[in-house]
Amino acid sequence: KVNGARLWQSLMDLAEVGATPLGGNCRLALTDEDKTGRDLVIGWFRDEGMSIRIDQIGNIFARREGRQADLAPVMCGSHIDTQPTGGRFDGNYGVLAGLEVIRTLNEQKITTEHPIDVAIWTNEEGSRFVPVMMGSGVFSNTLTLEEALSAQDKAGISVRDELKRIHYAGTEAVGGYDVKAYFEAHIEQGPVLDTENLPVGVVTGALGLYWYDVVVTGQECHAGPSPMSYRRDALKTSSQLINRILTIADSRQPDGRVTVGELDMHPNSRNVVPGRVKFSVDLRHSDKAELDKMHDEFAALLSEEKKEGIDIELKVVQKMPPTHFNESCINRVRDAVNSLALPHIEMISGAGHDAVYLSRTIPTAMIFVPCIGGISHNEIEDARPDELEAGAHVLLNAMLAEAGS
Amino acid sequence: KVNGARLWQSLMDLAEVGATPLGGNCRLALTDEDKTGRDLVIGWFRDEGMSIRIDQIGNIFARREGRQADLAPVMCGSHIDTQPTGGRFDGNYGVLAGLEVIRTLNEQKITTEHPIDVAIWTNEEGSRFVPVMMGSGVFSNTLTLEEALSAQDKAGISVRDELKRIHYAGTEAVGGYDVKAYFEAHIEQGPVLDTENLPVGVVTGALGLYWYDVVVTGQECHAGPSPMSYRRDALKTSSQLINRILTIADSRQPDGRVTVGELDMHPNSRNVVPGRVKFSVDLRHSDKAELDKMHDEFAALLSEEKKEGIDIELKVVQKMPPTHFNESCINRVRDAVNSLALPHIEMISGAGHDAVYLSRTIPTAMIFVPCIGGISHNEIEDARPDELEAGAHVLLNAMLAEAGS
Ligand SMILES: NC(=O)NCCC(=O)O
Ligand SMILES: NC(=O)NCCC(=O)O
Repeated sequence: KVNGARLWQSLMDLAEVGATPLGGNCRLALTDEDKTGRDLVIGWFRDEGMSIRIDQIGNIFARREGRQADLAPVMCGSHIDTQPTGGRFDGNYGVLAGLEVIRTLNEQKITTEHPIDVAIWTNEEGSRFVPVMMGSGVFSNTLTLEEALSAQDKAGISVRDELKRIHYAGTEAVGGYDVKAYFEAHIEQGPVLDTENLPVGVVTGALGLYWYDVVVTGQECHAGPSPMSYRRDALKTSSQLINRILTIADSRQPDGRVTVGELDMHPNSRNVVPGRVKFSVDLRHSDKAELDKMHDEFAALLSEEKKEGIDIELKVVQKMPPTHFNESCINRVRDAVNSLALPHIEMISGAGHDAVYLSRTIPTAMIFVPCIGGISHNEIEDARPDELEAGAHVLLNAMLAEAGS
Repeated sequence: KVNGARLWQSLMDLAEVGATPLGGNCRLALTDEDKTGRDLVIGWFRDEGMSIRIDQIGNIFARREGRQADLAPVMCGSHIDTQPTGGRFDGNYGVLAGLEVIRTLNEQKITTEHPIDVAIWTNEEGSRFVPVMMGSGVFSNTLTLEEALSAQDKAGISVRDELKRIHYAGTEAVGGYDVKAYFEAHIEQGPVLDTENLPVGVVTGALGLYWYDVVVTGQECHAGPSPMSYRRDALKTSSQLINRILTIADSRQPDGRVTVGELDMHPNSRNVVPGRVKFSVDLRHSDKAELDKMHDEFAALLSEEKKEGIDIELKVVQKMPPTHFNESCINRVRDAVNSLALPHIEMISGAGHDAVYLSRTIPTAMIFVPCIGGISHNEIEDARPDELEAGAHVLLNAMLAEAGS
C-alpha cells in the first residue's frame, strides 16, 4: 500500500520550486525553475537506487531494474513543467505517483519481472514552446526531433539552446525501443469526479480535437455617423455565428464539446463599428464520425451566415482524432480499482496528455483523480490527499500486474 | 467666392506634417507634430494680418478685426490634432475653410461689422488625452480648466506639461466672453452625403450618446474536460446579449444607432472556456425620449439574460444628451446653401464635434461635406476638392451674413 502522506509531502516540496503568490506554480519548460525541479526529482529517484537516462529532447527516464534486465520496461510518468499560472498537481502528480510506486516497492522489497521506468516528459504544457506535449510527441514519432529542438519561445530562444543551458540535452536517441505498457495518473482537470464524489476515474481514451480559426471581415466605420443600414459589422455576424456554433454539441452529450475561447476585435474601439473579428473554435468528441459531423455542421453554419459585404474565412489549425487506449492496459486499471473496491466511473479524457501521444506506439491507459471544483491551469488548482493516494494505489497495482512479480 | 485650389493646397501642405505611409496623418494632440502644425497654420493667419491669442488650454484664436472692435466676434473653426492613423480632412478642413474665408474677404477687401475669429481647439480627438473635445469642453464650461490640464497620456505626461513644452500654454482665460455665433465645417465621417451624391449637408444638431461597459462573469475552465452542462461560459451569454442589443435601433431608423465596438475576453485562450467578457455599448439617437427608451430596453435585456452562475454588471461611462443647434444659425447655413443653389439635405451629426460642446453657450450650426465612402478615422480618409470648396463657400456666406458687411 502506498504512503499518501509521503506522496503529498513530495508534491508540496516540488511545489516550492517556482511557487506563485496564490499558491500555484510557475515552472515553464526549460527555465531555471524547470531545471531546479528536474534536479530535485532526479535526486529523489537516485535515493531509491534508480538509474537515470536523459534523451536528446530532455525526457528523463528513471529505471528500477526488474528480475530480467533485457525485458521491455513497464513505464509510468507525466510532466513537471507548468502553465505560467499553473497548479501544484497537473503533471507533477503523475511523476510523483510513479516515485511513490517505486518507494513502496522498495519498502516492501518487491522485485518485478520487467524493469519499471518513471518518465518526465519535456514541455507538455506548450506554454513557452509550441507545440504542446513535445517530449512525448517526439518519443511517439508524432513530431521529429529536429522540429522540437528548433521550436522557439517568444524571445526567439530555442529548445535546443535551453536544453544545453540547463544541462538536460541528453545524448540518448529518443524512443525507438519497446515499452511494454505506459500508465499515466493525472488530475481530471474537469468537474465530473469531484461533482460525482468519486476518488478515481478509469480513463478509456481521449476526445478527438479539431481546432480552427474563423476570420469575419466587414468594414470598420465610425459608430456615430454611420446609419445601421450602411454598416458591415463584423461583430454582428460573429455573434450570430458564435450563438449557433455553441449549440453544435447540444445534441451530442456528454461527449461532444464546443468552445470559442479566443476572440480578437479590430480595431477594438468603443466608437468604431468592428471591421474584423477573429475567433477560435475548439470541437471535441470521442467518436470520429460524430466529430466529422460536427465539423460539417460548423462549416455549413459559416456558409449560411455569409452575406453581402461580409467575408468569412475558415482556417484549420490542428486535427487530432479520438484516442482509444489499449484494452488490456485499461483492464489492468479496472482490475486494480475493483480489487481496491474504489467507487469509480469509466471516462474519456477531455484534454490532451502525454499518454495520448504515447498510446500511438505503446499500449497505454490513464487513471484520473478529482481536482477540486474541476479547476485546473489555475494557481488555485487543488486536490485531496486521500484521493491522490487512492490514484497512486491504483497505479501501483496496475503496474505490478503488468510488470509481474 | 472662395478659391478651392488654394484651400486644397493648404490642406495638402498641413498634411505634410505627421504624414503617414498610407497617405494619412498622425498628429496627436500636443506632440511635436501638433506644435509644427500649429506653427504652420498660425503663420498663414499672420500672413492675412490676423492677430493671434492663445488661452490657458492652448486653444488658438486668430482674429480679423471688424468695423467695430468691441462687438462680439463671429467664430468658426475646428481642430488640427488627429487620430494615430487619422486622415487629412477630419478637423483640418474646418480650420482651413476658416482660413480660406479670411483669405477671400481680404482678397475682396470686404470689411465686416463684427470681428471674425478662426479657432483651433486643443485635443478634439481624445486619442492621446482623455476626455475628447477638451479645448471646446473647457471653453463651454463642460470641463474645468484644472481637469483638462491634469489629464495624462498613457506615459503619465500631463496636458499641462506638454502645453508648456511646445510653448502653447497661453495666458488668456478660457472663454468667458460673448461670441455672436459659431460655425463649423467638417467632413461628415459617415456615408450619407457620399452615397446620396450631395455636396453639402445642413447640420441641425447631433445625436445624443450613451456609453456603457458591460461585464459578464462566469467561470473559466478547461475546454477539454468540462462537459457542456457544467460550464458557465461568459461568451455564450455575451454573444446572446450582443445579438439582441444590436437590434435595439432597428425600429428607430434612421436616427437610432447601436454599436458594440470593444470586446475583451478573459483569459482569451483557445482551450479555455471564457470566464469573463467585457464589452462596450454605444447608443445614439436624436431624440432624448427615444434614447432613454433605448437605455431601458438595453437594461431590460441584461436582466432577461441573467442566469444562474452568470453575473452581468452594467456601468455607465458617459451620457451626452442630443444637441439641437441654434435655429437662426441653421437658417444662415440654409440661406447660404439656397443662394448658392447647392443640392443638399438637412442632417444630424452622428459624431461629437467641438461644435456640440460650444453650442451649449454659443449660438451654433455646422456644415457637412462628403468624405469618400464615408470612411474617416482612417489613413485612407478622402474628400473631393469641389465639395470641400462648396462647403467653404457656404461657410463664407453664412459668416458674412452673421457678421454683417
Ligand atoms: N492537458 C492539456 O491542457 N492539454 C492541452 C491540449 C488540450 O487542450 O487538450
Ligand atoms: N468626431 C468624433 O470622433 N468624436 C468622438 C465622439 C464620438 O464618438 O462621437
